[in-house]
Amino acid sequence: MNALTPQPSHLAMVPFVSVANMLKIVNRIGPAQMIAGIAAYLEDDFRRWEQFDKTPRIPAHSRDGVIELMPTSDGEIYGFKYVNGHPANMARGYQTVTAFGVLSRVENGYPVLLTEMTVLTALRTAATSALAAKHLAPQGATTMAMIGNGAQCEFQALAFQKVLGIDTVRLYDLDPAATAKAVRNLAGSGLTVVACASAEEAITGAQIITTCTADKQNATVLTDNMVGAGVHINGIGGDCPGKTELHRDILLRSDIFVEYAPQTRIEGEIQALDPDHPVTELWKVITGQAEGRRDARQITLFDSVGFAIEDFSALRYLRNQLSDPGEYIELDLLADPDDPRDLFGMVQRARP
Amino acid sequence: MNALTPQPSHLAMVPFVSVANMLKIVNRIGPAQMIAGIAAYLEDDFRRWEQFDKTPRIPAHSRDGVIELMPTSDGEIYGFKYVNGHPANMARGYQTVTAFGVLSRVENGYPVLLTEMTVLTALRTAATSALAAKHLAPQGATTMAMIGNGAQCEFQALAFQKVLGIDTVRLYDLDPAATAKAVRNLAGSGLTVVACASAEEAITGAQIITTCTADKQNATVLTDNMVGAGVHINGIGGDCPGKTELHRDILLRSDIFVEYAPQTRIEGEIQALDPDHPVTELWKVITGQAEGRRDARQITLFDSVGFAIEDFSALRYLRNQLSDPGEYIELDLLADPDDPRDLFGMVQRARP
Repeated sequence: MNALTPQPSHLAMVPFVSVANMLKIVNRIGPAQMIAGIAAYLEDDFRRWEQFDKTPRIPAHSRDGVIELMPTSDGEIYGFKYVNGHPANMARGYQTVTAFGVLSRVENGYPVLLTEMTVLTALRTAATSALAAKHLAPQGATTMAMIGNGAQCEFQALAFQKVLGIDTVRLYDLDPAATAKAVRNLAGSGLTVVACASAEEAITGAQIITTCTADKQNATVLTDNMVGAGVHINGIGGDCPGKTELHRDILLRSDIFVEYAPQTRIEGEIQALDPDHPVTELWKVITGQAEGRRDARQITLFDSVGFAIEDFSALRYLRNQLSDPGEYIELDLLADPDDPRDLFGMVQRARP
Repeated sequence: MNALTPQPSHLAMVPFVSVANMLKIVNRIGPAQMIAGIAAYLEDDFRRWEQFDKTPRIPAHSRDGVIELMPTSDGEIYGFKYVNGHPANMARGYQTVTAFGVLSRVENGYPVLLTEMTVLTALRTAATSALAAKHLAPQGATTMAMIGNGAQCEFQALAFQKVLGIDTVRLYDLDPAATAKAVRNLAGSGLTVVACASAEEAITGAQIITTCTADKQNATVLTDNMVGAGVHINGIGGDCPGKTELHRDILLRSDIFVEYAPQTRIEGEIQALDPDHPVTELWKVITGQAEGRRDARQITLFDSVGFAIEDFSALRYLRNQLSDPGEYIELDLLADPDDPRDLFGMVQRARP
């Protein structure tokens, strides 16, 4: 570019957080601290739930998976996430879930942040689970069973340690290599980590059960006889039509909490139930408009599918952490002619 | 970054076309040639219209404008555009419309292109208009009137010159400075360019009338008595609820062609008509399933609002032009751990 080439103005530039820079940010803040930070933003945004434009995500289903757009807005800021879910990807060396996201100003429609969201989604999903459990899990829970030890596992473990104060995780996965990976990664976390040979073994003594498996099918990760009174189930993996993890009988014994009922009825565990089966939206518990856990024998189920407001909270949190110019770059994403009506002149003036 | 820092693999990288690089590409290919190239991709994609997932765009409306997501897929490739429309932006020094877009592989959900689309949208909108006119405008049209001389104006003029063979454009805008800008930019195009003092003057002798104004209101850019027999109207500016350009009586005298009827009934000129008023989707004309122009006295109206498949075609065209590594950069957008289940390990290994 020579001195005569028009330079993009600051209006053209959008901060971009690459994967490498996201890793820098997570390691600077610390994963557990970042999850707790996002959980605080989530709680703020769940408190003002009614301010948000809410719509079920917009899916493009295919044989191999789904690509989704998840937009929302609070009237001042607009955010959306692009995310795919392809269970067969892992076997082919790709991520099951990858994502990126954007925040914009509603006032003028200009994006103000573009970021990788594969890592950020892992953090926000864990933060959401922990936030829900804070309001639903039995008091003084110390032990969490984790069925499914894939990409979400360690983030969930750290979230429940940091936000709930658990000290023990009991891990089980169909593939012992996944469990071994999680055990390795959680060494030094301060958690007692127990690798188990079966789901039954994993849930022994656990007050919280997190299910986080990836198969796109109606699986039965937990059967009814495995779930005792008083447990909180954090159901993560049942998150699209035809993909569930829990036996229907467990659902019938549980008080069910969801993010956004219209979406969860399509995508969550409750797709197995009647469309008018009573469920409670989490924001109502957080704002005190609905009851969370009532007693020590109640089974609570957080039927989590992931909702756009959670990504919005995570994006908002991230944007407020961007102070070090070494942690993002500016992308020339927006055409910004000197005269907004003179887009063509901008093209002409760029001629070599 | 030192030698021990893990480097992103090729799977993590997504080609990104910035505004500066888009300007390079447009100037290398030539704007008119690029419009013609996109029109050819459009025609291909309109011919296989039935293969596409189609959904009206997903809007987030606010007092000042709208932010929209426009996804579509042909089963192999998925594309979406983010676009805003904020009529008040111009007065504040921002673009009325800015956009960016993404193409992905349906098979694994991984994005393969991220690009600015403000400039690309201007090109594809002009290409769509010209493609429609090729099938609807009177044979041998030589003169186009253009009401509204904003950011779309010159692109439309070049498109109709290149694809339709017109030799004269007659320009009118409420703001003479906009017309003067277009006259200046079109000098050297080979077109005879006539600046007019009124819409009535502009349409004198024109076989094609393009309306492309930006006010978010039900305006009346053309009244019924202005439109004579045999004319083709290319209506661009009426493109969201409450934003139309043509008097209802003109619509009642016209044969109306649209991109995707469910979206146009919400956003186009035909929002002023009964919901069952007959309209013809353009793809049916292109595939020969419906009649286009029947006779020399018929008024044809292309009620264009912009549809996701057009962006898909433009993205597909652009992707196939990306050969020179000086015209795009690779963005590290996708987290790609060595083991897809080991996202947390990827975070840990990036610790400084």
